[in-house]
Amino acid sequence: MGDLSGYKGAALRFLEKAGAAVGDVLEVRATWGTVTGTLVPRYLYGDGEHIVIKLKSGYNVGLSLGDLSGVRVVAKGDRPSFSPPQPPKPSKGLPKVLLIGTGGTIASRIDYRTGAVRPAVTSEELHAMVPELSQVARVEPEIMFDILSENITPAHWTRLARRVAKAVDEGADGVVITHGTDTLGYTAAALSFALAGVPIPVVLVGAQRSPDRPSSDAPLNLIAAVSVAGTASFSGVYVAMHQGESDDKIALHRGTRVRKNHTSRRDAFESVDVPLAAVWGRGGLEHVADGLPPRGREFKPSPRFDGAAALLKFYPSMPGGLVRAAKRAGAKVIVMEGTGLGHVSKEVAKELRLFIRSGGVACMTSQCVRGRLDLSVYDTGRDLTRMGVLPLGDMLAETALVKAMWVLGTGAKGEKARKLMAEDLAGETTTRTFPG
Amino acid sequence: MGDLSGYKGAALRFLEKAGAAVGDVLEVRATWGTVTGTLVPRYLYGDGEHIVIKLKSGYNVGLSLGDLSGVRVVAKGDRPSFSPPQPPKPSKGLPKVLLIGTGGTIASRIDYRTGAVRPAVTSEELHAMVPELSQVARVEPEIMFDILSENITPAHWTRLARRVAKAVDEGADGVVITHGTDTLGYTAAALSFALAGVPIPVVLVGAQRSPDRPSSDAPLNLIAAVSVAGTASFSGVYVAMHQGESDDKIALHRGTRVRKNHTSRRDAFESVDVPLAAVWGRGGLEHVADGLPPRGREFKPSPRFDGAAALLKFYPSMPGGLVRAAKRAGAKVIVMEGTGLGHVSKEVAKELRLFIRSGGVACMTSQCVRGRLDLSVYDTGRDLTRMGVLPLGDMLAETALVKAMWVLGTGAKGEKARKLMAEDLAGETTTRTFPG
Repeated sequence: MGDLSGYKGAALRFLEKAGAAVGDVLEVRATWGTVTGTLVPRYLYGDGEHIVIKLKSGYNVGLSLGDLSGVRVVAKGDRPSFSPPQPPKPSKGLPKVLLIGTGGTIASRIDYRTGAVRPAVTSEELHAMVPELSQVARVEPEIMFDILSENITPAHWTRLARRVAKAVDEGADGVVITHGTDTLGYTAAALSFALAGVPIPVVLVGAQRSPDRPSSDAPLNLIAAVSVAGTASFSGVYVAMHQGESDDKIALHRGTRVRKNHTSRRDAFESVDVPLAAVWGRGGLEHVADGLPPRGREFKPSPRFDGAAALLKFYPSMPGGLVRAAKRAGAKVIVMEGTGLGHVSKEVAKELRLFIRSGGVACMTSQCVRGRLDLSVYDTGRDLTRMGVLPLGDMLAETALVKAMWVLGTGAKGEKARKLMAEDLAGETTTRTFPG
Repeated sequence: MGDLSGYKGAALRFLEKAGAAVGDVLEVRATWGTVTGTLVPRYLYGDGEHIVIKLKSGYNVGLSLGDLSGVRVVAKGDRPSFSPPQPPKPSKGLPKVLLIGTGGTIASRIDYRTGAVRPAVTSEELHAMVPELSQVARVEPEIMFDILSENITPAHWTRLARRVAKAVDEGADGVVITHGTDTLGYTAAALSFALAGVPIPVVLVGAQRSPDRPSSDAPLNLIAAVSVAGTASFSGVYVAMHQGESDDKIALHRGTRVRKNHTSRRDAFESVDVPLAAVWGRGGLEHVADGLPPRGREFKPSPRFDGAAALLKFYPSMPGGLVRAAKRAGAKVIVMEGTGLGHVSKEVAKELRLFIRSGGVACMTSQCVRGRLDLSVYDTGRDLTRMGVLPLGDMLAETALVKAMWVLGTGAKGEKARKLMAEDLAGETTTRTFPG
């Protein structure tokens, strides 16, 4: 009987019946085709309904038992002769960093036998994956949830904000949050508002390539995040990801100004229209922007979010019905992604006017991603201003949406909500003048 | 009585009563405030309900009579002593270029007296604005419509496509279309599909700064567009805009791969994930990409569009109701802008499944803007594929929406529509492999 680490329930029985063990090469028949790959261990919180195999391409695929009609062991895996290295005793002088896992692949370790991905939940495992961590901080790992980041909701942001606030109370020198990259930018913005004034560095970090692939960005991103969280002289919410495609510099982005601008590159994340907050190299922080807040500020978390806000991207001939639908779905704030300097068609403008008249708050951002709104240049913009649409300057559309959910979470309504949306609370909008 | 060129109806009476003339500095009181600026002439197709004044900032503002409570002449304008220069007789040997105006500021001329913006509708006016044009082509200007580009609809695309097809029949060597920059990318994509195989160059061109401002990009963009339309050895649909902030190089972008990525910069337009089609310098084309189609191809326009497609951008906690609303508004195709490699939440995925079951076509693109989808890496992606969501590779979301409207315009439905969406018809998607 081979090792079936982490498998349970129906998945365990399915594999036992086939005589399969972790590390074996399996040919699996599913309703949608046949795949061949190496069986990898499941992790602690895995369900009993999937098996996971590593394809030749390096990607791991989770296969749902319901889809599987058979499995055959093509080759037995080798039993490795070595064990993972043990971490040294962490030095008492090192800073204390809470490492919160939310389900991204970044905080996973490379299995010593199969190269498979598992969340690293113990200090030993973390050390096995990234030995350097033991030299920069006493890392206390904690998995809060384990979901694909596209399923993150405002409720998760609230839990994360509360946990970070607790870590501050507990005396943590910094917090690192590992997160799937898909919605990492949204969560970074959410925590920037919920934790405005946080006295320590809170660094969100992800990986574009899973840690078991030779090209993975996971180890370096994680080392940088922990190093910055533990030792930086500044505080606030940041995202740590590769600055370029080469594996040497990590960019620290401000939480409200960062966007995933590429599906797969290691340097997919970019600071939009603002300088990087900092750059980290293998020797430590190499560059820190002026004006970042120091550690030890006053801090009163405001962790509640209310999801009653909608983001609508304008397009030619967009039906006004989509604005009404957002309202019907409960939206009290609508963030439009208009064209250019902040425009929408007459039909959509008419619906926004009705939405505002019924008590809703309508905000404008630009689908250009970069640059700043100016609603004073063209008729359309002035009409929108006159009807009460709120221009959000150079705020990112995604950040504006998250901010709206946070504003609603504070209980603010009507004029109060409008005022909060327009103010700069966490670096989400700058007051540079229009460069025309 | 001063000159009130172009003013008519109520606007003319309002200005006459105040003793105002074009070129005078006026202080205008509106319901929303007071503005001071120079009265500029209206253009040929202006209505009688607005007056236009040029602010100190260089921007022109159109003021609606309904908002105005008074006007005062602050200073009388100077009468200039010169007339616009006359164009030379165009040389018979020059290529013939149809210049279609749609309402952007680009095809406007600088008024010799006030510096104001008016559409240039005669060869004389065009010459006055951009004398160089007479040296590169016999330009035949024609204003098709005069709207702000956020109000462009698929019906306008159809009219434009038909006019270009007629120009081909008439023996034009090239066509230039001036267009507001807000939705220039959408229209470029639309014409790329409607005019696939067009045997001449069709160049869309806009301006980020109006021609009366010293920093305007209008003249050079227009010269480049006319030059390329008239003389390039390749055919197809392109966008001509500044390559950088300096006023020397014009980038030619492929019509299906171009996006306005900044609200105000002169080089706001970028080719996404593909090389530029060509670069034009003051001496002519300096670089032309390999593989552009030659002139003189087979050509059968397909100018119809059907607006029954919707673009929805996913965001955390997006309500499934927005998908149902798009269907209720008549959408037969929904283009999702998912996160990362092409993901949406379980709730939205469930609604897409219902949409597909009811006969709709659901397509996936990425809100990352750059990069390529891969629905095989994560569970979410494989679930979406299984339920029939169509991944569109590296197709831009905006291009995908326009393509869907074109596909529907051909009368294609169901599987036929899916097949057309997935195929590369006009360079809208490339077949590079995922760089993982």
